[in-house]
Amino acid sequence: MASEVASRDEGLGELLDKQAITEVLYAYCAHLDRMDLDALAALFTDDCVVEYGPEPRLQSHGAAGLRRDLARMWRWARTSHHLSNVMVTLEDDRVHAGATSYVLAWHERPDGSTATMMGQYRDRLVREGGRWRISRRRQELTGNDAGFDVNINRFERIPRPDGA
Amino acid sequence: MASEVASRDEGLGELLDKQAITEVLYAYCAHLDRMDLDALAALFTDDCVVEYGPEPRLQSHGAAGLRRDLARMWRWARTSHHLSNVMVTLEDDRVHAGATSYVLAWHERPDGSTATMMGQYRDRLVREGGRWRISRRRQELTGNDAGFDVNINRFERIPRPDGA
Amino acid sequence: MASEVASRDEGLGELLDKQAITEVLYAYCAHLDRMDLDALAALFTDDCVVEYGPEPRLQSHGAAGLRRDLARMWRWARTSHHLSNVMVTLEDDRVHAGATSYVLAWHERPDGSTATMMGQYRDRLVREGGRWRISRRRQELTGNDAGFDVNINRFERIPRPDGA
Repeated sequence: MASEVASRDEGLGELLDKQAITEVLYAYCAHLDRMDLDALAALFTDDCVVEYGPEPRLQSHGAAGLRRDLARMWRWARTSHHLSNVMVTLEDDRVHAGATSYVLAWHERPDGSTATMMGQYRDRLVREGGRWRISRRRQELTGNDAGFDVNINRFERIPRPDGA
Repeated sequence: MASEVASRDEGLGELLDKQAITEVLYAYCAHLDRMDLDALAALFTDDCVVEYGPEPRLQSHGAAGLRRDLARMWRWARTSHHLSNVMVTLEDDRVHAGATSYVLAWHERPDGSTATMMGQYRDRLVREGGRWRISRRRQELTGNDAGFDVNINRFERIPRPDGA
Repeated sequence: MASEVASRDEGLGELLDKQAITEVLYAYCAHLDRMDLDALAALFTDDCVVEYGPEPRLQSHGAAGLRRDLARMWRWARTSHHLSNVMVTLEDDRVHAGATSYVLAWHERPDGSTATMMGQYRDRLVREGGRWRISRRRQELTGNDAGFDVNINRFERIPRPDGA
């Protein structure tokens, strides 16, 4: 009976953590689309590393650096970041977690031309003072239209086996 | 120990309410895409206010009014409403809640031309007789293609600060 | 008091099952986009039936058959399957469940041309050895662009009533 209670509590704790982490990932999108960069930066750890692509200009260090670097998003007139497929893996220490999610990001320039990309965020999170924050984010590109030309990390598929 | 149980129960209650509310928002999309307007109207309170845009013709009053007004969606041959980023905020009374969600809505006319919009639903919900219903819905437009020309409320970004 | 505990446990059990099933549906997308067909096949029961469309070539029988048939997806250079609107219905036996979800699937050919489809998965799942697996999947098409020409089952809308 005691083990049943422990198991039930563990299940509930996992659900609460997954929900809290999912809400952090959604908040990133909401703050980015609104360009509330202060609120966005508060979702990351002070020493976070965020790597959108292989070029140094697409890599941010620290929440303050990320806040500064994402000012580049002002070049878009409108953006909409649709996040789905949120998969969270909690570690046994209850303090660290990993998450993979899918994003469909639409961007419009002031001239009305648009750019759409599809990708995955691969995140590491840590619980600090009762709140989950993103400590590491790597974005990988699974698809894009002709209007999108930012050099995001390529998502790697398993290559077709010989004869398949 | 009693407070731990109370806290655990509170956490579970919040998760159950968030799940129930999320399912209401998904049901809206499913019923709309199937054009099951009776089932759709049952998701709203009798005195609901639904505001898709600033023009009176895009504002519905009451579940019965909404059911009647959404007959305009028959002008599309097909629609698909993809809902994501569901963020629910429960109020302390456990009877009221707010929700923000993202929608990517694709529409096709009988002539095969299409219109795609991206936006956010900003909802108020109330628990009535054990069921959550939408009492207020405001839609805001975050993006659209050239084929979409309905006058939806504009989503407001924070303007670029001077010098940024 | 005992009934409150039972009710609470039931609510928690439902949330855990819905979360587990949702993760199975997300894993399908992740494995398919990576073309990890072994991992994908392990999400289905040995005797599963998967029906993407009305033609026999779009119907797979058994996890091994599905694994073999989905090798056709190598013809795409890149894919991205964005899953949302996951609605799970648990049956009283706690062993069977139904799920409906929305997918936005983008595909790119080696020549750079693309095909996008929108649809719904209608699934049956069964709990086997503590894990939920998909025993039946039917895909229905709610929308597509001109580049997508696979004969997926058509999603049926309620027809416009006379005079509406």
